[in-house]
Amino acid sequence: MSQFDDFPSDETESLLVDYPSMEAAATSYNSRGGSNGATYKNRRQSSDEELLDSVMSGGENLNRSAGFANKDLDPNRSHGSSTLMDTLDDLPPGIGQYEDFHTIDWLRDVARDRTRHRQVVKKKQDGCLQYLQGAHDAWSGWMCVLLVGVFAGALAGFIDIGASWLSDIKEGICRDAFWLNREQCCWSANDTTLDEERCSQWYSWAEMVGIRTSGGGAYIVRYMFYIIWGCMFALTAAMFVRVFAPYACGSGIPEIKTILSGFIIRGYLGKWTLLTKSIGMMLSVAAGLSLGKEGPYVHVACCCGNIFSYLFPKYGSNEAKKREVLSAASAAGVSVAFGAPIGGVLFSLEEVSYYFPLKTLWRSFFCALAAAFVLRAINPFGNDHLVMFYIEYNEPWYPQELVPFMLIGALGGLYGSLFIKLNIKWCRYRKSSVLGKYPIIEVLVVAFVTTLLSFPNPYTRMNTSEMIRMLVSRCGPEDTYDLCDYKRNFTDPKSYMSSTYAGDGVIRALWMLFLALIFKGIITVFTFGMKVPSGLFIPSMAVGAIMGRIIGIGMEQLVVAHRDSPLFKNMCQSECVVTPGLYAMVGAAAALGGVTRMTISLVVIMFELTGGLQYIVPLMLAAMASKWVGDALGRQGIYDAHIRLNGYPYLDNKEEFTHTTIAADVMRPRRNDPPLCVITQESMTLEQIETILKETEHNGFPVVVSLESQYLVGFATRKDLKLAIANARKNIDGVVSDSVVYFTNQIPSGGSGPAPLKLRKILDLAPVTITDQTPMETVVEMFRKLGLRQTLVTVNGRLLGIITKKDVLRHIIQLQNQDPDSILFN
Amino acid sequence: MSQFDDFPSDETESLLVDYPSMEAAATSYNSRGGSNGATYKNRRQSSDEELLDSVMSGGENLNRSAGFANKDLDPNRSHGSSTLMDTLDDLPPGIGQYEDFHTIDWLRDVARDRTRHRQVVKKKQDGCLQYLQGAHDAWSGWMCVLLVGVFAGALAGFIDIGASWLSDIKEGICRDAFWLNREQCCWSANDTTLDEERCSQWYSWAEMVGIRTSGGGAYIVRYMFYIIWGCMFALTAAMFVRVFAPYACGSGIPEIKTILSGFIIRGYLGKWTLLTKSIGMMLSVAAGLSLGKEGPYVHVACCCGNIFSYLFPKYGSNEAKKREVLSAASAAGVSVAFGAPIGGVLFSLEEVSYYFPLKTLWRSFFCALAAAFVLRAINPFGNDHLVMFYIEYNEPWYPQELVPFMLIGALGGLYGSLFIKLNIKWCRYRKSSVLGKYPIIEVLVVAFVTTLLSFPNPYTRMNTSEMIRMLVSRCGPEDTYDLCDYKRNFTDPKSYMSSTYAGDGVIRALWMLFLALIFKGIITVFTFGMKVPSGLFIPSMAVGAIMGRIIGIGMEQLVVAHRDSPLFKNMCQSECVVTPGLYAMVGAAAALGGVTRMTISLVVIMFELTGGLQYIVPLMLAAMASKWVGDALGRQGIYDAHIRLNGYPYLDNKEEFTHTTIAADVMRPRRNDPPLCVITQESMTLEQIETILKETEHNGFPVVVSLESQYLVGFATRKDLKLAIANARKNIDGVVSDSVVYFTNQIPSGGSGPAPLKLRKILDLAPVTITDQTPMETVVEMFRKLGLRQTLVTVNGRLLGIITKKDVLRHIIQLQNQDPDSILFN
Repeated sequence: MSQFDDFPSDETESLLVDYPSMEAAATSYNSRGGSNGATYKNRRQSSDEELLDSVMSGGENLNRSAGFANKDLDPNRSHGSSTLMDTLDDLPPGIGQYEDFHTIDWLRDVARDRTRHRQVVKKKQDGCLQYLQGAHDAWSGWMCVLLVGVFAGALAGFIDIGASWLSDIKEGICRDAFWLNREQCCWSANDTTLDEERCSQWYSWAEMVGIRTSGGGAYIVRYMFYIIWGCMFALTAAMFVRVFAPYACGSGIPEIKTILSGFIIRGYLGKWTLLTKSIGMMLSVAAGLSLGKEGPYVHVACCCGNIFSYLFPKYGSNEAKKREVLSAASAAGVSVAFGAPIGGVLFSLEEVSYYFPLKTLWRSFFCALAAAFVLRAINPFGNDHLVMFYIEYNEPWYPQELVPFMLIGALGGLYGSLFIKLNIKWCRYRKSSVLGKYPIIEVLVVAFVTTLLSFPNPYTRMNTSEMIRMLVSRCGPEDTYDLCDYKRNFTDPKSYMSSTYAGDGVIRALWMLFLALIFKGIITVFTFGMKVPSGLFIPSMAVGAIMGRIIGIGMEQLVVAHRDSPLFKNMCQSECVVTPGLYAMVGAAAALGGVTRMTISLVVIMFELTGGLQYIVPLMLAAMASKWVGDALGRQGIYDAHIRLNGYPYLDNKEEFTHTTIAADVMRPRRNDPPLCVITQESMTLEQIETILKETEHNGFPVVVSLESQYLVGFATRKDLKLAIANARKNIDGVVSDSVVYFTNQIPSGGSGPAPLKLRKILDLAPVTITDQTPMETVVEMFRKLGLRQTLVTVNGRLLGIITKKDVLRHIIQLQNQDPDSILFN
Repeated sequence: MSQFDDFPSDETESLLVDYPSMEAAATSYNSRGGSNGATYKNRRQSSDEELLDSVMSGGENLNRSAGFANKDLDPNRSHGSSTLMDTLDDLPPGIGQYEDFHTIDWLRDVARDRTRHRQVVKKKQDGCLQYLQGAHDAWSGWMCVLLVGVFAGALAGFIDIGASWLSDIKEGICRDAFWLNREQCCWSANDTTLDEERCSQWYSWAEMVGIRTSGGGAYIVRYMFYIIWGCMFALTAAMFVRVFAPYACGSGIPEIKTILSGFIIRGYLGKWTLLTKSIGMMLSVAAGLSLGKEGPYVHVACCCGNIFSYLFPKYGSNEAKKREVLSAASAAGVSVAFGAPIGGVLFSLEEVSYYFPLKTLWRSFFCALAAAFVLRAINPFGNDHLVMFYIEYNEPWYPQELVPFMLIGALGGLYGSLFIKLNIKWCRYRKSSVLGKYPIIEVLVVAFVTTLLSFPNPYTRMNTSEMIRMLVSRCGPEDTYDLCDYKRNFTDPKSYMSSTYAGDGVIRALWMLFLALIFKGIITVFTFGMKVPSGLFIPSMAVGAIMGRIIGIGMEQLVVAHRDSPLFKNMCQSECVVTPGLYAMVGAAAALGGVTRMTISLVVIMFELTGGLQYIVPLMLAAMASKWVGDALGRQGIYDAHIRLNGYPYLDNKEEFTHTTIAADVMRPRRNDPPLCVITQESMTLEQIETILKETEHNGFPVVVSLESQYLVGFATRKDLKLAIANARKNIDGVVSDSVVYFTNQIPSGGSGPAPLKLRKILDLAPVTITDQTPMETVVEMFRKLGLRQTLVTVNGRLLGIITKKDVLRHIIQLQNQDPDSILFN
């Protein structure tokens, strides 16, 4: 496996997978990437809580048995059973944890948390300290998301400032204070009029090397420095990623979706990944590559979420609960990326999160708001704009304009699906060819090509966010650049409110924009997926905004030229009003929608991004057209496509399962396979069980009444069995290989032979079961909604087989006529 | 049961309930309310589709069996099995429908819809007509929500116009054109300056009866007319509700929550309810009662959703799918109530809907937007304000102000829980006392008291929305009323931007507002729950806005008086800036939050309502404080409290189940009960089954291998059994009472005796089962997430008992130490 391969995408939650090889792969990653250090250390620190938790987890099983004995309803029994729980410290530690690359069991984790919660509530009456502990526990969720929000906001501010400084370094330097970016440099030099390129303290590299004229020589020097700095930044970013945290590459959203759907990828949200990604983002954005830092903010915020969750054992030691914090963190990520707290929450809800209980909604909002608030306090952009691409116009739109808006939407959808197809093809080619072995050289080549081609064109040379802001704006009296070169009556300031004929500058700008569109469209395909931190939001929006602005100017000129046509009469009372900036805004939404297939969150983000609440209908129409056209050409958004490409075990909860297969078609063992490996509840010896554990690699074993009847009793996981047996061998006298292992409540007394081993407490007495006739629709629904790891298949009460999450995924892919092995487990 | 009792709140989904009495109750309601006509007729019209559906539903069972025989994976089998489905027209019609007051089975309904969808997709290749049908099917979801949105918007406009006209009628009439309200009347008379009370065409009732002076006589006449009209309107509204549709009373949101959680209440969303509610809303609002029309809009929109869903059999004949339309409709309801499409979607998501798949999100947004768009086109308020309570100020808030904001939030939470407690107490008293028997007299008395007390106080006399708009606004130069009587320098228009000392008018206004606060606070307790359409949003917001404005003016005066204090120094640079209107806005959010316990949707609705995106932090803080204080004093919001009060079978998906009980504690039969009533798969005769059907009232029967072993085979519902047997008796030769009924796949050949009856196709071969040790947490989770009707309890494969949704509800109530019978099934 290449050191730089995406990650060892096999996964071992299935009962029938090659287990040891996986563990080896995981370990090799641990030692190599180094990104697991944080997580690992934190886990060790919280091992006490883990122990407590695992004890309680076991305690619950006992509690269940206690409940069974006492069938009468007793609301206060939770108090009564406490003695049982307190005496349960003979259970070995580690029960209830997960291995790397495993699927989590939501039902069990949630139940564990409730048991823990009951413990805390009960103890609350014991004393003042316990009361404080209880209060701390109750508030820890809010505390945790507050910390995450504050830290994510601060980090975003830091990254913004760093990226801005590095970006400016490409063009020149502040001679007296190199740590200032151009804006601050000129500001500190009291050059309040920030005209074109002049500012006394800021020296371009041409000036630094001594060329003071602005002729060809200076241009070439600046060009060269631009390329050299760009390649250096890109190289540094790639090296950082390679050396410190391979997980820091890409946008991170596909992986976060997978993690939130209930999968463990240790180190993906660790300290090293956070640091590497933060620095790598600054560098790769500053390099001028066609990528954004908005997507990676989600990853950075989730890293914060993961790290801070370890401060609160309630979240840190319970994978299901931790995912609540991560959902909130991803909302905070989008919130700081765009200054859009509501959009962030909806993004988390619609796009990223898998289980989103309603109480998480409110907490996510709080987290997103805290993050946005901190970022605004840091004020990295040096202005007090509430919104990133604030639009100052308020002109109405006319019904005729809905036609071009819809066209823009459709083009956005088209672009989106084309981009996804090409990008996936290229990524697949990279994986399978020799190219994948030289990621750093690839980054270097792309950076060279990007900087080489983007310098001559002012629209590609400038910061991409800057360009989008320019495109969605209206031309005001102070705007003198080409794009605003209209044939106006300069004496009348009101003439800027209306449309008029374009001058030569606009035509030039259109050509430049067209070239920028082609360039951005193509280079982004090659950029997204490289081994540097890279987001897609801003490049997609840029492509859409360029497209929208071009169509907008076309529409404007059309209306102006035919102002007397009955078609446009209502748009031209005294002056025609067409706002090309609005078209650019609609285009940005359409392209972003086409690439990501977001819906409501897209529209809300666009509102918060531009403040254009009055343009809800155009935005909505374009988003819909984009989504419909995109979906017609290919169902998956870019994140889902990358999930599939990388073979993550993600069970999509948006796509409907529409086939007529039933559980019997999917379950293992298949018809000609050997029968399912089971354990009997009261007839197997310790040695027999140990043999089973040794000879098979299943992650769990159903326990049945007897091998003949196959009536199901419960389910025991491999890990719990191993731990319990090791513990018994060490600590319980008389337990030898010939000891009979009992999973029953009662042990037949008076038997001869060695001391029996009671293992009922590690047995899950309530495994989820279905019948073999259950339609797979229902099974998939159960896996999605209940977050199952596996379900047992029975017929008339007899155990017939097992279906794991992996079996379900494999089945879905098979039904799509794709090769399950090549796709899912490449 | 009183004719006007809330509704027959018993429900029959349990196996162990008194079935016939319920049906009688439902029927008596049908004939009395008359509101079922629409629904019923529509259902008849679509009976063909129902038949098709039910055939397919049965077909699926057979399909499952086919799948069992053919274990190998065959992705194309859905095509192969079509012949099976097409030949299934021997199944009796009606299988798969629900009785009134029953719980729906989501898994089954969703599966039915997918089968139907597969049919449509398959047929699409057969010809042009089928292709069109397929396209129609694919688009029917969008068509349906579009229709619902347009119609809900139009209806809201109609209601707004009607209510506004009726409200003005209380005070006077437009002499030349009685159908105009005051604004239009004055407008048409070209009295463009709408000063105080004067307008040439508008005659107050005092003027109409001939008193042209504005002395005491005129006041008394106007007072009397105010009371008389108010009582008349209230009486008419109550009569309408009583005669045409008892379901039209109240806000409807508790019932809609219950319906969306999977319960059938026929007629609740019918044509008659829609008409009665629309007219009743106008009347009760115009009567001047302390209620709003915003909540009932949700009910009205849901009625539209229900009615239009019958145009699309995909939704009309499938209860689970219909709820998707209803979710979208409730979003449209809030959207038209406040002009808040995004807030509407979030309200539907957070407060109303139970199952909210993500694809519904986008469709709901579309529906909400269409509704808002249509309403805006109708423009019932005669102004072009994008937002209802538009605030024109943009002043910053200061950190010190967070203290009063938090105080307002806490007071809002306090008010909310106090209101809920008192209102529930009063409603319970009404139910249990003689008062409940005279609903019309109650309405009349409340209307009399309301109008009597509200006329003297200008703040209670005016329209409540008008008052809220006034309170959240800033005093401008043109505002001459008491509330804006500050000691200003009138020559300087800029002085209106800042705070200054209050004049006598403000003190008077404060007293008036205080009285209005007391009055509104008390009268609303008695108003909400009466037998007229009544909403809570506006009265709650009014109370909060008054409270906020009072505190705001207090804060303002405090800051102005201590402008040199270090505490307030930063707020007073040259002039102090405190905006009492902002406090009113925060107060409105806090009180509404306290009453409804909404969170994110509340904040978003407040944004859309006021346009104050810059006040996100104060609003958020107040909403949080309100929610926390409210939740500390009582967990339930007003809607949940009314659900509990009325005993609706609603399984709350927000509250966590934290007890340690297990399935064995809850399942029936209990320890000393007779064993569960089961059917065997191949040994019972038709007569035996008919006896069971006759002697028990269970809604379904588990089918087991044999009575001795109790191994579970499947589950058959009473309705399907009855229909199948009746059908067999009529149509199949040789089926007599002695015929053995077989639920097996194979029938032993060569047996003597009468012809056997094969009923495997009505058998659900995949009932959801759990073990007796399953913790109730998990069981509750399964009921919530999978939308179960019942689950069977097994141990080691043997059937032990059954848990229905009602058992779960009863159990939850029992654990809260409340009497299950008195609460749930009063």
